[in-house]
Amino acid sequence: MSAGPADAPRRVAVVLFDGFTVLDVYGPVQAFAAARAPAAEGGRRWFEILTLAESPGPVRSGDGPATHAEHALGDPPPFDILLIPGGFGTRQAVDDPRLIAALAAASGRAAITATVCTGAALLARTGRLDDRPATSNKLAWDWVVAQGPRVRWRRHARWVDDGDVLTSSGVSAGIDMALALIARECGRALALTAARNMEYVWRDDPDDDPFA
Amino acid sequence: MSAGPADAPRRVAVVLFDGFTVLDVYGPVQAFAAARAPAAEGGRRWFEILTLAESPGPVRSGDGPATHAEHALGDPPPFDILLIPGGFGTRQAVDDPRLIAALAAASGRAAITATVCTGAALLARTGRLDDRPATSNKLAWDWVVAQGPRVRWRRHARWVDDGDVLTSSGVSAGIDMALALIARECGRALALTAARNMEYVWRDDPDDDPFA
Repeated sequence: MSAGPADAPRRVAVVLFDGFTVLDVYGPVQAFAAARAPAAEGGRRWFEILTLAESPGPVRSGDGPATHAEHALGDPPPFDILLIPGGFGTRQAVDDPRLIAALAAASGRAAITATVCTGAALLARTGRLDDRPATSNKLAWDWVVAQGPRVRWRRHARWVDDGDVLTSSGVSAGIDMALALIARECGRALALTAARNMEYVWRDDPDDDPFA
Repeated sequence: MSAGPADAPRRVAVVLFDGFTVLDVYGPVQAFAAARAPAAEGGRRWFEILTLAESPGPVRSGDGPATHAEHALGDPPPFDILLIPGGFGTRQAVDDPRLIAALAAASGRAAITATVCTGAALLARTGRLDDRPATSNKLAWDWVVAQGPRVRWRRHARWVDDGDVLTSSGVSAGIDMALALIARECGRALALTAARNMEYVWRDDPDDDPFA
């Protein structure tokens, strides 16, 4: 990915499935959306968000509200970053071979794939995490680990940055991972601006995991 | 509101309008949804979420994705808590007399009204905050204050709890406020459980505002 502010925004494609966890999606989405120039400089955004699902239309979260998916996961517009959330719905989704195949293809198209919480279980099922370090939610740890027996799971981690694949711990850890990805790709100053725009105290140490 | 775990869940009605900020909605929604008994005890939830807008259907956020509103703001089912988010869309919304009247009526029906970020500007326009303490986003402070000249604005506050009305500072402060409201209504143990379910480090002091 290029890094100049004069370029077109990077496109973040978020995968939605029945029973996703809302903050797994909207924490990182908010961080990417808040990565923008000051209003005095036009408020230009560095990232834009797309939503993907098996088919376009409303997708019900595990927490109640439904988010409207804009594009079919099997036929998406171009994007740079693939974001896979977790949620109670992953318990069914890991056994949906069409979804897993579509995720594998989408991850293959993305420059960067990032998972939040039990989204790592979905990516593990594609084989993409085999022989790589990764983390996930601590409350669902044993179940997630069983979805990827060849993954080098790291229990004590707020998130794991393995280059073109990042995985975060549970729910709100996705915000910290997204800010770290913004810092890595666009500079720490932009990540700090995004955190300030969200009035969010960024936990910026990936090894500081109070929930492990 | 009653406080027993055997009761029906409290109903949280979230107001959506064009250009709302996603984390203003989904931070508190996640906190309320994460307030549940351990799985071993059935995972029972203490809160359930409704979505309201001028009319049912998709409502586009200021950050890209659209959330599907289930009910018309003017004809909602019963609810206990009204949650009003902020966002760049509030700049137009404060001048929409129909929306302000509908918010006034909805707030009148609610046992508790809570705002996040510039959502306080919308509630201020109803007159509901007159002669009461309140806070809001710090980056948009001057504009918000001008929407409620009779409000006792408190700049240095992560959130302000004034009984049946709570107001929070910017974006992620809504999570801290929601957890505080869960603690107040249902006990601190449930708030700590919700925070743990979200792997979220709760900033539980309303006077600790690093962004003031």
